[in-house]
Amino acid sequence: MKHYLNLDAIPDLQSAIDEVIDLKNDPYAAEDLGRQKTLGMLFFNPSLRTRLSTQKAAQHLGLKTMIMNFSNEAWALEFEDGTKMNGLRSEHIKEAAAVVSQYCDIVAIRAFASLSNKEKDEEEQVLKCFARYTSIPVINMESATAHPLQALADAVTIKEQLFTKRPKIVLTWAPHPRALPHAVGNSFTKMVQKLDAEFVITQPKGYELNPKITKNIPLIYNQEKALEGADFVYAKNWCSYNDYGKILRSDEEWMITAEKMKLTNGAKFMHCLPIRRNIVATDDVLDDSCSLVIEQANNRTYAAQWVLKKLIENG
Amino acid sequence: MKHYLNLDAIPDLQSAIDEVIDLKNDPYAAEDLGRQKTLGMLFFNPSLRTRLSTQKAAQHLGLKTMIMNFSNEAWALEFEDGTKMNGLRSEHIKEAAAVVSQYCDIVAIRAFASLSNKEKDEEEQVLKCFARYTSIPVINMESATAHPLQALADAVTIKEQLFTKRPKIVLTWAPHPRALPHAVGNSFTKMVQKLDAEFVITQPKGYELNPKITKNIPLIYNQEKALEGADFVYAKNWCSYNDYGKILRSDEEWMITAEKMKLTNGAKFMHCLPIRRNIVATDDVLDDSCSLVIEQANNRTYAAQWVLKKLIENG
Amino acid sequence: MKHYLNLDAIPDLQSAIDEVIDLKNDPYAAEDLGRQKTLGMLFFNPSLRTRLSTQKAAQHLGLKTMIMNFSNEAWALEFEDGTKMNGLRSEHIKEAAAVVSQYCDIVAIRAFASLSNKEKDEEEQVLKCFARYTSIPVINMESATAHPLQALADAVTIKEQLFTKRPKIVLTWAPHPRALPHAVGNSFTKMVQKLDAEFVITQPKGYELNPKITKNIPLIYNQEKALEGADFVYAKNWCSYNDYGKILRSDEEWMITAEKMKLTNGAKFMHCLPIRRNIVATDDVLDDSCSLVIEQANNRTYAAQWVLKKLIENG
Repeated sequence: MKHYLNLDAIPDLQSAIDEVIDLKNDPYAAEDLGRQKTLGMLFFNPSLRTRLSTQKAAQHLGLKTMIMNFSNEAWALEFEDGTKMNGLRSEHIKEAAAVVSQYCDIVAIRAFASLSNKEKDEEEQVLKCFARYTSIPVINMESATAHPLQALADAVTIKEQLFTKRPKIVLTWAPHPRALPHAVGNSFTKMVQKLDAEFVITQPKGYELNPKITKNIPLIYNQEKALEGADFVYAKNWCSYNDYGKILRSDEEWMITAEKMKLTNGAKFMHCLPIRRNIVATDDVLDDSCSLVIEQANNRTYAAQWVLKKLIENG
Repeated sequence: MKHYLNLDAIPDLQSAIDEVIDLKNDPYAAEDLGRQKTLGMLFFNPSLRTRLSTQKAAQHLGLKTMIMNFSNEAWALEFEDGTKMNGLRSEHIKEAAAVVSQYCDIVAIRAFASLSNKEKDEEEQVLKCFARYTSIPVINMESATAHPLQALADAVTIKEQLFTKRPKIVLTWAPHPRALPHAVGNSFTKMVQKLDAEFVITQPKGYELNPKITKNIPLIYNQEKALEGADFVYAKNWCSYNDYGKILRSDEEWMITAEKMKLTNGAKFMHCLPIRRNIVATDDVLDDSCSLVIEQANNRTYAAQWVLKKLIENG
Repeated sequence: MKHYLNLDAIPDLQSAIDEVIDLKNDPYAAEDLGRQKTLGMLFFNPSLRTRLSTQKAAQHLGLKTMIMNFSNEAWALEFEDGTKMNGLRSEHIKEAAAVVSQYCDIVAIRAFASLSNKEKDEEEQVLKCFARYTSIPVINMESATAHPLQALADAVTIKEQLFTKRPKIVLTWAPHPRALPHAVGNSFTKMVQKLDAEFVITQPKGYELNPKITKNIPLIYNQEKALEGADFVYAKNWCSYNDYGKILRSDEEWMITAEKMKLTNGAKFMHCLPIRRNIVATDDVLDDSCSLVIEQANNRTYAAQWVLKKLIENG
């Protein structure tokens, strides 16, 4: 594993899940692995879980962390090649990435989608430029189109439910007042395809995810029908992909309620957080024992620790 | 001690003071106590002393720290139950607190009074919600109505003066251009009542603190009279409690001057800092050897260390 | 060495360079030197290299760091004596510096020039006030008029080129869309004068640096002539010193290009970063093997480590 830019970096998801669970059972087992090494964490966007869980994961491995918020602590970065840099951006990614490589052994980056320019977002400019111009491993802490740390934690959370039969997993779009990126939906979809599970996506028309990612996956426009017999309901909002960045509807019809959960096979409820209560899902879903959202967040630590461990061991 | 939300958490103030002084004499004596443990420090407001002294205290105990400024690094939090979260706040305290509990062993929180809604402030919503929804100990790094780390440090600073007689302590209101909270005044008042000392509060009419906290304490509206024979003068501004959040006067009459200090029994001058020079007190008071303000700040480290130590030992 | 405020703190530059190179060869050799010690890093301005390299240097020495952005995390500071503090600034440097001294063993400060008031900038108010009111060593992480950590790293970078003959070093002004401080130009000029080198400054008329710093140094207004036979070209923008803070020209004539580099003796290109590509220098200069800019940044770590080591050893 050279970088952890997306789920393709994981050679074998099942082994990875098992190893994450091992780390969770004994988090300090490799406490000296990161000795004299430093993880740089660079944020272009807000973070709570990702920041704290990755920092905690580093601590478990004895790895030092240096955190920087690029939005207000450092220089505005330019990512385009060949630009005359006479505007607001005072440092080029070529220098920034090369320089950071010298101070850190691994660098983790959070850079959300702009949702204003689909091509730019799909190029994953920030993440890819760091990977191109750095000489150290790069970890994706949520980029424009992928959130592979979340997806690995989600895979572990599903595995921990110890299903004896092949579970039915439903990814359902849910409402949200703001336009949100597709990163979590994309990575969850990619991850579930590697599990032994029945997988269904449900969403209103117009909210189709990138068809390259969802091809061959059953798409059901009737949410209640999709939920029937589900063992896991993963709720998530995303904005329109076709009409890129747009919010097409803001009513409550697609909110997950206790009523809807009754249609399932006693399903567990999942969400990556932060979640808007009584918009994405009702209080009675989130406060019920069916909710796995807190455990998903907990598993973020061990998913990040697994990635850090692999990158150090290969380094 | 389960949490350190206010002074009531201290079982015996005299013993606590003695133990703080022991820590000050040998700060690294329990350097391994915090091994493999993490303190989360969450700030909703600015901080200099509290942040650095608490971080230093953690270092003395070998405790790792993770610091987050909620105002610009994380998601805006919702604290009300049952809200439809369709506004600016994207994460509910229920999730945030539960999630933070998984990454930290202790969490410390700074959340000032709004000074716009007395009832909300007195509910201590931010602090109490964290304590309610977290599974780990919570430390108050100044909340809407209390600043118990400051008060413990102040108690130690008074004790260090080694008074042979019962000292007279005067808490005096002082001017300030901005409306300030009551937290320091409240906690100092509560703390002094546990000392063997004569205690007097002096302030202009209209600046009475919460009567539940000041009952039985002599209140003198004539500052010069109150200062007579004082051994300690603790100056602090607060806004009106009755006319909540209002500034009733902005003249210099109540500023502490060298002249006024002459009315005392060679009193020591105290203030929690930050202090506005020549508004709250004159340069000649602050630059005189009577001033204990720097030592008060120093004692913040050992007060915080005592709290951290107790919470780890009980944990 | 009591403080590291400017290059005058270095007793012998040649020995310092050699010692920095020793640290670079074995960065963890003194891993226990900083045990139980803390470096406070206070930022009034943005930073990437300085922040990460100094933090990394501290890690090499086992020194803990506490970082604070004064612009948004702490209280606005007052630096003038005798002020009635009834404005926006809520804490005086006298208290802030004294307080920080108690929580840290060394404090490092970044405070850029205002470029609006020459006298104030030359007084180095922020840095000098910290040095005056603190009881611990102070490190300059770029002040209004000096950047001695950069200059030491630059000296090391030049030395590493292993010149057998006395090299010719050219400091050339270069264009920039914003008014920039003189700190880097000043410190580079002071440093080079201590090397065994031919030194020339080239710049457009009106961009003369402080004559106290540049006296006796050949000044050539014709950039191409100055570059002839150069072994090192150090490019840097600064605003006008005489017409303080002004930008006198914004054309491209002084940009460093591959064409211009051909006039030199196969010179190495240097810049402190961040650099505006195709404004200060063209892509083909920066992407060529003649560029030392990334190595300069790398050497920042060991320059800072040398300073920290000296301050701890003398402490």
